[in-house]
Amino acid sequence: MIPEQLAQEAIARCRQLGRFSEEPARLTRTFLSPPMRAVHETLTGWMEALGMAVRVDAVGNLIGHYPGATPEAPRFLLGSHVDTVRDAGLYDGALGVTLALALVKALEGERLPFALEVIAFSEEEGVRFGVPFLGSKAVAGRFEPDVLKLQDAQGLSLEEVIRAFGLEPAQIPQAAYHPAQVLGYLEFHIEQGPVLEALGYPLGIVEAIVGQSRLEVAFRGKAGHAGTSPMHLRRDALVGAAEWITLVEREAREEAGLVATVGMITAQPGVANVIPGEVRMSLDVRHADDDVRSLAVANLITRAQQVAQRRGLELGYLTRYEQAAVPCHPDLTEQLALSVEAQGYPVQRMASGAGHDAMIMASLCPVAMLFLRSPGGLSHHPDETVWPQDVEAALRAGLDFLHRLASAQHQP
Amino acid sequence: MIPEQLAQEAIARCRQLGRFSEEPARLTRTFLSPPMRAVHETLTGWMEALGMAVRVDAVGNLIGHYPGATPEAPRFLLGSHVDTVRDAGLYDGALGVTLALALVKALEGERLPFALEVIAFSEEEGVRFGVPFLGSKAVAGRFEPDVLKLQDAQGLSLEEVIRAFGLEPAQIPQAAYHPAQVLGYLEFHIEQGPVLEALGYPLGIVEAIVGQSRLEVAFRGKAGHAGTSPMHLRRDALVGAAEWITLVEREAREEAGLVATVGMITAQPGVANVIPGEVRMSLDVRHADDDVRSLAVANLITRAQQVAQRRGLELGYLTRYEQAAVPCHPDLTEQLALSVEAQGYPVQRMASGAGHDAMIMASLCPVAMLFLRSPGGLSHHPDETVWPQDVEAALRAGLDFLHRLASAQHQP
Repeated sequence: MIPEQLAQEAIARCRQLGRFSEEPARLTRTFLSPPMRAVHETLTGWMEALGMAVRVDAVGNLIGHYPGATPEAPRFLLGSHVDTVRDAGLYDGALGVTLALALVKALEGERLPFALEVIAFSEEEGVRFGVPFLGSKAVAGRFEPDVLKLQDAQGLSLEEVIRAFGLEPAQIPQAAYHPAQVLGYLEFHIEQGPVLEALGYPLGIVEAIVGQSRLEVAFRGKAGHAGTSPMHLRRDALVGAAEWITLVEREAREEAGLVATVGMITAQPGVANVIPGEVRMSLDVRHADDDVRSLAVANLITRAQQVAQRRGLELGYLTRYEQAAVPCHPDLTEQLALSVEAQGYPVQRMASGAGHDAMIMASLCPVAMLFLRSPGGLSHHPDETVWPQDVEAALRAGLDFLHRLASAQHQP
Repeated sequence: MIPEQLAQEAIARCRQLGRFSEEPARLTRTFLSPPMRAVHETLTGWMEALGMAVRVDAVGNLIGHYPGATPEAPRFLLGSHVDTVRDAGLYDGALGVTLALALVKALEGERLPFALEVIAFSEEEGVRFGVPFLGSKAVAGRFEPDVLKLQDAQGLSLEEVIRAFGLEPAQIPQAAYHPAQVLGYLEFHIEQGPVLEALGYPLGIVEAIVGQSRLEVAFRGKAGHAGTSPMHLRRDALVGAAEWITLVEREAREEAGLVATVGMITAQPGVANVIPGEVRMSLDVRHADDDVRSLAVANLITRAQQVAQRRGLELGYLTRYEQAAVPCHPDLTEQLALSVEAQGYPVQRMASGAGHDAMIMASLCPVAMLFLRSPGGLSHHPDETVWPQDVEAALRAGLDFLHRLASAQHQP
């Protein structure tokens, strides 16, 4: 099968998996929900057809093993997740799995100096239990037993859900790979952003997954009658918040690679004829360099303090969440870049603004990650799509990458 | 009784009326709700003690008549409303009635060349049926029969509520005064704003009740992932809205007497890690001069268009409500100013940023309106209050005003 056909098949398989949903008219497939059984059956069929041995670990990751040249050969991992957000698109996660299988198929039985394992992670999005990366955390040996007590919206615990799927939570520690067994991990994923499309490039080489700060910021002023309070006697929390939001944008624009977003805003009392007395907002700040991010957050808080002071407002803020940036492995990433170049595609290095399983896997082994252009920059949306020629590009680069890796193994 | 004692009594009477509430721990008294009966009984007692004849018109206005020197004497009206908002203060409305009664008491039986009628309007706030000024509209002959079909939250129609109170809706047209019978109307009201307090003045002479424009304004951009969308590729509806909100404030500050308020804001989808794709806001613009207001609204829309264009956003707006400014009567207002000055108080002319019964009464007869300082600028709040010395000032000015009016009547 030529790469063009394999690419078409990888896309068709995403559509096929997308039929397995918890909801009738849209795609929603959370951790070990009923449609996940059909996903497992389907993937098992595809993997067995490629001569792969299939197993499911205790957290519900489905893993296909494609043997290496020798039984003692180390393993190289490929994969992504097969859970989705609510009302999801077809490709976020699933494409990383179907592309990995296309890559195995493209080998046409060729044995490499390492075994390939394709992992369909059971959980990445964090929808059902509010905690993401359940699958990759188990594989990386970072699964925290406390989360087994978490309950979903129906009051079922994570532990109960795993048992109901026919798995044994007590065996989750055995899902962890030993670092010595693993050469590395490569993940294909749609970009979920507009950068590659804006550049006109099919592929992006991920150098790091950005670190993230999530804060709550509140301005408090004084509510008052919109008619009877002259402008100069107001302490309007919303005008203060508005001024600050424009400064958030300005600061972020001035620092390359920095993104800062106010996504949530509420004004109290929130009626047309009352001056807002209090405004609450979220602030999300991300950068591939943790120092740059920390400095940016500090600057934005200083800006907020200045706005508050000048306007006689009270400022409150709280850091809700902090996550350090995760660099991809420099050597593996360099090899991936060479493969992309060798196959005749432009080399675009970039940071991933979203978290991925690769971020967790980086604590187990060297990781590399390849982005595919997202038409319209769409993410977590039913209209999410990919271009067949971009999937073909990813496949050609991936195959080159595996052979490059094989050569390197032959010449230690 | 000296003015100081009369002022204390007027305040004490507001507290007394404040006990008549629909709710146990706070003051809420809507149109013809059960506690309104106790208000009527109490007011009737106070009025009859002053030798006034009391009647209730078909829309529930309670009117006390204090005869003039001759039976044919025209009538001069005093009053305000006795309904309240939810969780109201004690003085908004009620003080205008108790002060009017204190004024009658201060006359100590003196007959003027006009009768005085003190009207306790049954409805001004618009809480129960969503339509304000039911009482003064009936008196001014502007009651619209269509509103009788409106229903309250319990599904009772306005018509049913009037009947249940023992009144006959068909007689509402007879509640209207004939303009020829009426010399004028004077209303005392708390300022409900911070202007007089900031100036340190007890009284304000209302020259006009501002006109008002209420709009809905929406910016639409493109929702996107807060991590994967670089700043330069965003069309963030909230940053556009924020920029515009700061311009709304700036424009309003530059025009004397103009107030402009964004009181309500919602961002969609409204989650921390998604760039807002749509923001909806309210805009409230008020000024005593309708041309100034119209121009300001047009300018603010132009500003919004400029922001939208520069940012690649779509702008939508809709005028929800427009109300022309209502000037108070120049001669009557001038007399009121002379009285304030004659009693030794500073003359502060100002616009009322909120609507009042006087605004409706202006279509029936010459109106004048006197504001009393609102400590803390509080409005529609249980902590709303007045200073006794300010009530005394209003009483002294009011008495001077009545005598000035009487002299003018004697010398036609």
